Amino acid sequence: MIEPLNGIDTYIKEKVLLIEQELKTSIPSQWSIPAPLREAMMYSLMAGGKRLRPILVLAAAEALDADSTAAMPAALAVEMIHTYSLIHDDLPAMDDDDYRRGKLTNHKVFGEAMAILAGDALLTHAFHMIVQSARKHGISGETIADIVEDLSRLAGAPGMVGGQAADMLGEQGVTRLEELEYIHLHKTSDLIVFSLKAGGRIAGASDKQLAALEHFGTCIGLAFQIQDDILDLIGDEQKLGKPVQSDVKQQKVTYPYFIGIEASKAKVEELTRKAKQSIVQAGFPKPERLLQLADFLMKRDH
Amino acid sequence: MIEPLNGIDTYIKEKVLLIEQELKTSIPSQWSIPAPLREAMMYSLMAGGKRLRPILVLAAAEALDADSTAAMPAALAVEMIHTYSLIHDDLPAMDDDDYRRGKLTNHKVFGEAMAILAGDALLTHAFHMIVQSARKHGISGETIADIVEDLSRLAGAPGMVGGQAADMLGEQGVTRLEELEYIHLHKTSDLIVFSLKAGGRIAGASDKQLAALEHFGTCIGLAFQIQDDILDLIGDEQKLGKPVQSDVKQQKVTYPYFIGIEASKAKVEELTRKAKQSIVQAGFPKPERLLQLADFLMKRDH
Repeated sequence: MIEPLNGIDTYIKEKVLLIEQELKTSIPSQWSIPAPLREAMMYSLMAGGKRLRPILVLAAAEALDADSTAAMPAALAVEMIHTYSLIHDDLPAMDDDDYRRGKLTNHKVFGEAMAILAGDALLTHAFHMIVQSARKHGISGETIADIVEDLSRLAGAPGMVGGQAADMLGEQGVTRLEELEYIHLHKTSDLIVFSLKAGGRIAGASDKQLAALEHFGTCIGLAFQIQDDILDLIGDEQKLGKPVQSDVKQQKVTYPYFIGIEASKAKVEELTRKAKQSIVQAGFPKPERLLQLADFLMKRDH
Repeated sequence: MIEPLNGIDTYIKEKVLLIEQELKTSIPSQWSIPAPLREAMMYSLMAGGKRLRPILVLAAAEALDADSTAAMPAALAVEMIHTYSLIHDDLPAMDDDDYRRGKLTNHKVFGEAMAILAGDALLTHAFHMIVQSARKHGISGETIADIVEDLSRLAGAPGMVGGQAADMLGEQGVTRLEELEYIHLHKTSDLIVFSLKAGGRIAGASDKQLAALEHFGTCIGLAFQIQDDILDLIGDEQKLGKPVQSDVKQQKVTYPYFIGIEASKAKVEELTRKAKQSIVQAGFPKPERLLQLADFLMKRDH
């Protein structure tokens, strides 16, 4: 008997609850860590957010009809990477933000030095989490090595950090759409690609399936970022929970700036269609959640 | 025929040359990385230093009579971790240093934002290097997982970053020798312990040998830091290449502050003796270089 799938909203809510429960105990309580450092790490880790990346880790494993429990450590790892990148991005030397998601940023609460260290510690701890899928769920060392290699590349200089550096350098003048795409692909897509591949690897994906997950991630990552640009321009401040038109005010170039709002919307739709197509063609046993998540991201209003 | 060992000075010089040669090509040239980010990473990576930690990785592998070639990626990894920690420590929000080893610090050359990102990228790239010992030298995935687990703990919140946080918090008043020892053990010893264990793991060390390497590292790491405190107090500015008595001027508590200079010297000797003893007792086939390195560190005048 085939049970009907819950709606994607319910699926996301359930996963967020589960992920946040696991995050709470993700730094071993028996470890001796200076209290303010531990607090600073937990403050940002538990500060909410969409939890999109860890959900994608779990959904990718489920698309292969695997129990997603073994993928949970990698899901937590990617949220740690995402969180550290936000802490460092918010620093005075970087974007100098006082608030994120309505809460004071890490350095406003714990000071700059501790915020830098909390970011460093979360980045390092992400790799500890990856190994836990071997320790707790019997994932092989070869798979761990593959995942560590993916993460070090996609979150590192040729990946997320490179995208962040390009973004910062670009504030002195991005002049071409190609430069903007480079920033989006690395700053956003790379970690999404990692999430999908990590879930896939843990569930024993074939090379063909891994390539499809990578293409899916690249497309929805770019679509996500263009959608962000669009929402910043025409979104609802209430739903977004932040002021709109900040890109215009900060003179940041965006997709709508280069190709207009209608073409940007069309691009989001095209990328979502291509993303879904690659999953369908690669023959996953249970692709539904991934396909629903792609649509969910395209239709979001915040 | 047993060839006589070169002096330890020659051994160190040869290893430094080799390590610096390998560091030059440690970030793949085919990777697309924003030029200033790559430059900032290489600037600090190639800015000199004792290269003590990578030498210990190689020496530990050699103590097990292994060819140290397979240990080189891990040696480069630990130097990347050490380098990132210096870049972040030098930031205005941390120690606010303009010079290190006679050269401008990273943020003075590349700006604070790029220095933060260069540190993040080096930390992430260290894990990439660890996996290269599997890709290039056939080290097993299980060993890679063990090394990644060690590194994530010993360089993370319960290790080096925790030591750095405690040091920073302690500047508001370390009152007990135990607190100072906590700082030294984590800020300095932990990464030295990692270096020795990584070399040991790659060379197939037994659990008994790994435990001996860990004890050796803990002891020489603490001795190294106490020796630093002593040299800061009574060393030769010319040889040290930096002003002495900086701890006194900065009102930093040190081992000599707590127990006096003679007792501090005796402590360095005792720790060195204990370190060597643990190596001798664990039965390494070629322990000479590790033993010589312990003596070399104890007798150093800079």
